[in-house]
This record gives sequence, C-alpha cells and structure tokens, in this order.
Amino acid sequence: MRVEIVAVGTELLLGQIVDTNSAIISQKLAEVGIDCLYQTRVGDNLQRIVSVLNLALERNDAVLVTGGLGPTQDDITREAIAEVMGVPLQHNPEIEDKIRAMFSSRGRTMSANNINQAMVPAGARIIEQKKGTAPGLICPIGAKVIYAVPGVPYEMLDMVDRVVIPDLISMAGVTGVIRSRTLRTWGLSESALAELVAPRLEALDAGDGRTTIAFLASGIEGIKLRITAKGGSSEIVDALLDAEEKELKSILGDIVFGVDETSIEMSVVNEVVRLGLTLSVAESLTGGLISSRLVNVPGASSWYRGCLVSYASEVKHQLLGVSDGPVVSESAAIEMAQGVRKLLGSDLGLAVTGVAGPESQEGNSIGTVFIGASSSMFGDRALQLRLPGDRDRVRQYATISALDWLRRMLSGRISATGLD
Amino acid sequence: MRVEIVAVGTELLLGQIVDTNSAIISQKLAEVGIDCLYQTRVGDNLQRIVSVLNLALERNDAVLVTGGLGPTQDDITREAIAEVMGVPLQHNPEIEDKIRAMFSSRGRTMSANNINQAMVPAGARIIEQKKGTAPGLICPIGAKVIYAVPGVPYEMLDMVDRVVIPDLISMAGVTGVIRSRTLRTWGLSESALAELVAPRLEALDAGDGRTTIAFLASGIEGIKLRITAKGGSSEIVDALLDAEEKELKSILGDIVFGVDETSIEMSVVNEVVRLGLTLSVAESLTGGLISSRLVNVPGASSWYRGCLVSYASEVKHQLLGVSDGPVVSESAAIEMAQGVRKLLGSDLGLAVTGVAGPESQEGNSIGTVFIGASSSMFGDRALQLRLPGDRDRVRQYATISALDWLRRMLSGRISATGLD
Repeated sequence: MRVEIVAVGTELLLGQIVDTNSAIISQKLAEVGIDCLYQTRVGDNLQRIVSVLNLALERNDAVLVTGGLGPTQDDITREAIAEVMGVPLQHNPEIEDKIRAMFSSRGRTMSANNINQAMVPAGARIIEQKKGTAPGLICPIGAKVIYAVPGVPYEMLDMVDRVVIPDLISMAGVTGVIRSRTLRTWGLSESALAELVAPRLEALDAGDGRTTIAFLASGIEGIKLRITAKGGSSEIVDALLDAEEKELKSILGDIVFGVDETSIEMSVVNEVVRLGLTLSVAESLTGGLISSRLVNVPGASSWYRGCLVSYASEVKHQLLGVSDGPVVSESAAIEMAQGVRKLLGSDLGLAVTGVAGPESQEGNSIGTVFIGASSSMFGDRALQLRLPGDRDRVRQYATISALDWLRRMLSGRISATGLD
Repeated sequence: MRVEIVAVGTELLLGQIVDTNSAIISQKLAEVGIDCLYQTRVGDNLQRIVSVLNLALERNDAVLVTGGLGPTQDDITREAIAEVMGVPLQHNPEIEDKIRAMFSSRGRTMSANNINQAMVPAGARIIEQKKGTAPGLICPIGAKVIYAVPGVPYEMLDMVDRVVIPDLISMAGVTGVIRSRTLRTWGLSESALAELVAPRLEALDAGDGRTTIAFLASGIEGIKLRITAKGGSSEIVDALLDAEEKELKSILGDIVFGVDETSIEMSVVNEVVRLGLTLSVAESLTGGLISSRLVNVPGASSWYRGCLVSYASEVKHQLLGVSDGPVVSESAAIEMAQGVRKLLGSDLGLAVTGVAGPESQEGNSIGTVFIGASSSMFGDRALQLRLPGDRDRVRQYATISALDWLRRMLSGRISATGLD
C-alpha cells in the first residue's frame, strides 16, 4: 500500500513556513506499515496541483493532500480534485449550515467566502470538521483515493488520526507493524561507524529482511543508527529491535550514549544521579552552553549546583584560584574544575578552557581546548582537544566533547590517565 | 527560471527528520527572484530517485538535490545522477586526496568508504567542500543542470550560498537586480504587527510594484519583515530598500531590534560597547542561555566579565548576597544583579530568576519570571513577566525577554520606573 503526501501552499515553496505536516503524517504511516515513497510540495496553482495529483495517483494507491481548503481565492484544492475526478463541484447545504453555526456559536458572522468550503466534488465523502471550518474530503477515483485535509496542523492532525489513518488501514488490509529505534552515538565519524557496523548490515541483508539499519547524521550531535523492523505484531517487532540493539551495542560499546530521545546531557545526568553526586561547571569559551544543556534535563535542582562562566581571565584567577600565568592549559583546566567545586560546593567539577577564535591566544591556535574534571571519587584529570571549525563550531564541539568525556568517565570506562 | 528542490533521504519519508533544508533554500531562491514551483522528497532508492530527477528536469530548468552524498551504502545520489546523465561515475583522485588530508589534519585516518565521495559523474563539475567531506556537484544535462549538495544543513548552506545561488543567478541571465532586506522585530504578535504595517502594504500595492513586504514568523525569535525590491541596478534597489526600511522604522520604532543577520544579542552588545560598559549576568532557570548568546558575539572579552548560574538557592544567598527568603521575586532579581556586578566586577549586572517548571515554586506558578538590572548609570530596576508554555519555552522566552529589555534600557528608551 503506497501513499503519497502532497502539501499545497505557495508559502511552503517560498520557504516562509517549514513543512512539518508531511513529517508528522509520514511517521504515522510508517508506524502502521504503510509505505510513503514520495512527498511533494506544490503552490496555489490549479494546473500544477492537478498535474501533481494525477502523477501521485499514477504512482501510488492513495494520495493525502494537505492545505488549500481555506475560504480564500488561493484555496483551490477542492477545484483541483474535482478536475482530477472529472466531476463538478457541488454545493452542500448541510456543510454551509454547520459552518454558519460554528461562527455564530462564537458570536460572529460567517464571511461570504466561507461558502467555498461547502463545495464538494460530486461522489466525494466528507471528513467532518471538528477543529476548524473546513471539512476534509475522501475522494474515490477508481480503486484509488485522494484524501484532502486542512494545512493547519491541529486541524490536520485531528482528521488524520480520527479518519484517514483508520481508513487507510482498512483499505490496505494491513496486518503488519513497522517500528524504529534509534541508537545515538558520538565520537566516531560516519564512515568509521559504517565500517564497524558493516558486518551487521551484511548479516541483515542476508537474512529475512525484516530488520534494516540506516545511518542518520545529526551533525555535531553525533550519528544516529536507526534500526527498523517489520513484523506481524508489536511484540514480534519489539523483539527484533531488542535483538539488533543488543548486537550493535556489543560491537559499539560506549560509542552509543543513548537510545531514541536520550540526549548526551541526559546520559550524563543519568550517571550523576546514579552515583548520587552533585555537579558544578566552570566555563569560559563555551560561555554557558554546557550549563544550559544540563539544565535542560528536568530535576536538575537535586544534583546541579550551578556554573561560573569565568570569561575574563581575572575572574578565573580571583574566583577559581587559577594560578597566575596561562589560562589555556591542562593545569588551568584542572584548577578551574577544583575551584568551581569549592566555590559552588559540589562533589564533581567540570571545566573547559580554550581558544574559540577568531584570534589565537597565549600561543595556542584556534580550536585548542582543555577539559578538566575534579572529584574525590575520581581525582583530578584533564584532556586536550584540537577542534576544527570556526568560533561557533569550536564552542559547540567543546561543549559536546566535555559532556561526552564526563559521561564516559562516570560510566567507569576511563582509566586514571585520560580518555582511552 | 524554474528550479525544483529534491530532498533525498528515507529518514525524511519516515518523518524522523523535518525537511528544513528545502524551506531555507526556497527562501534564498525567492530573495533573488528565482521561481521554485515544486519540491519533492524521495527515499534512498535508486530507481525512484532517478525517476524523480527525470521528472524534475522535464518540468524545470534546474534541479537542486540535497542529501545522499555521504560515504555509506545508502548514499546513492551520485549514482542516480550519473544514470540520469547517461554517463559513468569516475574516480577523482584529487578529491580523494583532499578528503584524506581533511582526516589527517584532525589526527585521524580516512575510512575506506569515504572513497565513494570521490566518485563524480563524467562531465560534472565539483563544488569544493569546505565544511564536510562530501564535495557538491554541478551536473549539466543539455541546457539544464542538476546541482547536488549534502543534506547536512551546515554543509548545504555553505555550498548553496557560495556557489549554487550565484551560478543560478548567472544561468538565469537575471539582468535586473532583486534584493531583500529583513527587519527583525520582537515584542508584537504577527497580527498586531500586521495591523501596524497595513498602511505600508496598501501604499506599496497601490504603487509601482517594485517593493513588497512579506512576514516571516521566526517563532520565539520574533517576526521578520522581509522587504524585497526589484530594479535595474543595485543602486536603485538599495535606494528602494532604504526608503522602505525608513518608513517601517518610523511606524515600528524599537520593535525593530536589528536588520538582516543582527540578532538580539548583537544589538545588546552594540549598546554595551557604545556606552563603554562592562557586563556580567546572574542566571538561574535560564541556566546559561543568556551568557552563551552574549558570548556568540565576537569581541566579548573586551566587555564581558562572565556569568554565575546560581542554580541552587544557597548559591544565590552565599555568593550573590540574596537575602534569606524567596529567591523568585523582584527584590531577589535586583539583589542577584547587584551581587553579580560585585562578584565579577562589572558596570552592569543583569539577572533572571523564575519558575520554569515542571513544578511551581514558592507559590509562584510556572512562567513567573523576574528580570533585574543594576548599574551606576541607570540605578536598579526589575520587571515581572508571566510567560506561557512548557519548561523549555519558558526558559527560551525568559532569555530573549531579558536580552530585549536590556537592549531597550540601554538604547535610552526605558523610564526610571520600568519598561515603557
């Protein structure tokens, strides 16, 4: 069963709105095992909408159109569908009455142009509108069908969940389930990861095809490995996902920092809470990025003391006790970590100092970064990095590197000398 | 001149990633007067990518493909384009060398599968890669062309700005000039802004059509007003843009915080530097977000002392001198601002305290936020906000509200009693 999603609206083509509807709908289709192989966006132009709908019907079993069901003269989806169906638009007085009543229940009068929303291609069925004024449409064409729903996200969601997905499921005679699980990794390039994972890909290719793996680069946030499994039921599919997750984790070890929505900061916090520790942070070039990510995780007040962004050098010396001399060095990073532990009163201190640019500093080139950590549990240690990119990327990379290093340290995989 | 945007990637069809690239690219095309009438998304399937590219070439003058240029076996855009062009893929040793060098400059070794990224359809030109390992491609097919750029936004943006847009402009033989300028506003809803701007829209509609205004909602970062002008030369167009900018600023006053790329933090920094002051910040629920935005602005070391994220209440009392008692209040905000000025040694102190959720605190509901400011130039003052949304939105809104309030205060438009 193949469905194409067509999003109608010139504002989409001008990039004034990001098309989130298509992403949401396609997730829902994937979850119920319905294939979506093409998605198209087209503007408020009758001839182009008609041509896109015709092509979509040709190459799929059903089409789901969002947008163009408003009351204005730009809203021509009804007209386009009628043309594709080869039928006239007919005025439906019950819809008009309903729209009129919706306005008067809010103490307002229906505008003349809302009457357009009561026009229906002959032979089409209505999807009753509960959230907005426009009804949706179910338009049969031979053995195929075009569904039309509004572009406004909460109106679209209501109709898709309530009517369209159930209708597609029954049309498809779908019995299977497709589900995905994403392993989040950090520290390896996409190509190094691909090499490690290659044996699994070969094994799955040679197998029954129910499980597949795809690589999703997330830029600076690391590489996601998406495992997708198809099967007759949720239980079967979850078992397939569990099995593949286990295989991949045994190959990748702690390159994997979390699953699905778990961010690097969440995985750090899990370790901090597991060990019953409190944490404070000393930042400089990262400017508060590390702290703001940690505070993203709810419940921070039970383990997080706070952060000192010691941007000016004197602040490092005076408040954190960093020795006179260089502030971009391994010993400065350790002193910052020790200093913030004392200043804010925490078990663990994490510190980052370095050169973001645009100029070098103290003879260190842009991208030279030192991360320091201090705790009674682990002692004091530091790590030096050479990071690529411009000021912004160096800061972002330093932030994530520091969080990842702390995560690994706390999950027990760091030796006394530094990162393994 | 018509360009179709094709986004390649099964993760797009499964809704796991929202396709922001197409929106960004289509905005850029609109700004230079190039039509984008269709946008398509297709998965990592060779036959379907080929069919989508062929259709796109048929109905447009050029095609811009994003995605599928990585090193893994799912990355088949190069292969698909070669098939559309009817040519073989050829190994380009210079590209391979360059990729190898990119890895070794970071102290790493290139993986075997990166060699895939050195394959080029015969007859295609390279778009040099500056941000990632994959080069882009310019692939002529008769009088038409397919551009291929990576799907990773950071890499895509560099190539589109640096090479693709200029190439399209020259291919289009655009003789007139179209240019846009964006006024960035904060503080009004889109509909309130639309009402204020309506007289200008009417005036422009009634005029010669050379200048238009469009509203681009940027979510929490405010509403952008994009002025677009067409004319025979840069001078003419810049004069039209200047004139309209002046008209809009006279209506909107300091609702406008900047033009084009000027962020709220840049406009704050402009004022701080203009007044020759130094600044420090005390944060709590915002966790470092304000500080990290300020540090975004290069040259911070000349005016920025740093920030204390006093997340734990004791830290507010002990280090900032906040009186015993409530830490979410107007007086606590003022004491935090005074305290951080003293602690870090700055002319200006900015502080934010409040309730982000998920629970209320000290009887204050979620979204209750107090911003405080302290300086010898302006005295001490505070502002109370009631912000909507969940934890994340409250934090983001508090951050931007604080920066905007500081901006207005410094640009001299705040009375002694608070926000006008």
